[in-house]
Amino acid sequence: MRDPRDALSAAQVGAWLGHALALSDLCRRTIEQVSAAGLSVERKADRSLVTSADRAAEQAVRASAAERTPEAGVLGEEFGQSRPEAEFTWVIDPIDGTAEFAAGLPLWGTIIGLWYRGLPLAGVIDHPALGRRAHAAWRAGAYLDGQRLVLEDLPATGPSGTERIGTPSRTAFVKFRDAGARFDALARTLPNLRIFHTCLTHTSAASGALDAALEWDAPDWDLGATRILVEEAGGAYRTLSERVHPELGRVSSAVFGRPRLVEAIAALLEG
Amino acid sequence: MRDPRDALSAAQVGAWLGHALALSDLCRRTIEQVSAAGLSVERKADRSLVTSADRAAEQAVRASAAERTPEAGVLGEEFGQSRPEAEFTWVIDPIDGTAEFAAGLPLWGTIIGLWYRGLPLAGVIDHPALGRRAHAAWRAGAYLDGQRLVLEDLPATGPSGTERIGTPSRTAFVKFRDAGARFDALARTLPNLRIFHTCLTHTSAASGALDAALEWDAPDWDLGATRILVEEAGGAYRTLSERVHPELGRVSSAVFGRPRLVEAIAALLEG
Repeated sequence: MRDPRDALSAAQVGAWLGHALALSDLCRRTIEQVSAAGLSVERKADRSLVTSADRAAEQAVRASAAERTPEAGVLGEEFGQSRPEAEFTWVIDPIDGTAEFAAGLPLWGTIIGLWYRGLPLAGVIDHPALGRRAHAAWRAGAYLDGQRLVLEDLPATGPSGTERIGTPSRTAFVKFRDAGARFDALARTLPNLRIFHTCLTHTSAASGALDAALEWDAPDWDLGATRILVEEAGGAYRTLSERVHPELGRVSSAVFGRPRLVEAIAALLEG
Repeated sequence: MRDPRDALSAAQVGAWLGHALALSDLCRRTIEQVSAAGLSVERKADRSLVTSADRAAEQAVRASAAERTPEAGVLGEEFGQSRPEAEFTWVIDPIDGTAEFAAGLPLWGTIIGLWYRGLPLAGVIDHPALGRRAHAAWRAGAYLDGQRLVLEDLPATGPSGTERIGTPSRTAFVKFRDAGARFDALARTLPNLRIFHTCLTHTSAASGALDAALEWDAPDWDLGATRILVEEAGGAYRTLSERVHPELGRVSSAVFGRPRLVEAIAALLEG
């Protein structure tokens, strides 16, 4: 079966990637400007944080996307979905890791994904406070700061138990359902965990700085750029579950990184 | 009872802090130079990583410390202890988070502590790859990038369960003894964990970016600057256990950060 994305030429894919990179630049400038002017921070109904920078950056990206790519819809954390029927959809989280951002920890990032007929076509994760950016596009490879990413698999003997695994905190496992035992099983079997709690986990899994990583019950905008980044780097991406949350829409659990490790973690978390 | 450190004048303490900052500058330059020339990475007998930058930086700091402060001993990760009888001891880890450093994650740091009669007198944690440095000295306050750190306590009602807690990975809890159940209890009770796995956890606890943090069975050089940073910021530091490891010498477990949270975590982990 032909992949629907192959209907697009390399030039078309390249043009979309160019838009994605430009939107990420715009996000970075907007966040800088709002931060310099003085940030306001408040708590949303679901108790998560939002800042004036999140809102300003998402508005700026939406306005620019509408001008550059009027044929595309947008799905974003702060202002919902526009044009859900469009073939192309921007899936954006201007500040993923708002709590880290508000705390002054430089681990947050901007996620700009582009989906074509529900499949990831291009993706950028920018870490402005680390001066580091990853991008990828369909059949065009994945890059971190201009360097091509090539993920090696584990040896055929499989995981040793020392692999570096990125995970959300246990909070994510008990937020919408009681899956805390999955986190506990993961920590017992693969104890060398990292919890950065932002998309730094995702870029680290795409670059091999982590051997694998996962998200648990995460909305689409948290994962908008991850699959294309990891798959174009030669890694595997497995969706473990999908459900519909009344306010967030679809939330997914997924594991991604070196293929044999992804299979082992998927078996552990699905079992 | 008078604190032995009060025998030193503010000018003496200031001079020692100046030396600590200069040693941290030297470390940063040495690591930059070795990295630019091309890093070599190998595995030590205990399976932990060491790079040519760790060794070069510790040698540079030892040489400079011997010249600047001949009256002081040095305890470091790579080259052991010199002059254990000295009143002043430099306690240094040139690259804390070597695994993160080798993986290209910017979360590692340089730890420079100065102890006087076994009590912390001054401390610097430098994060070169984040462009961020914390320092503190006895009765002189704690600072992050020149800004005074002042930790507020939790309200008298105590922890809500949403506090942000920095911890080492579960690997640390099972490395020398089977204390994995302590990690599991922590994750269940205070699920909003972060695992940076380096001294970024410590500077985050001193600045309030994390509400509290802990180390588990960590050698002295991992904790050489932490207590003075946290206490001078107005936080609490509690040692939970000390034991002697045949190769590492003393290893300690400790919790530090906002005082009421430190007490709650200490009760949880000691219980």
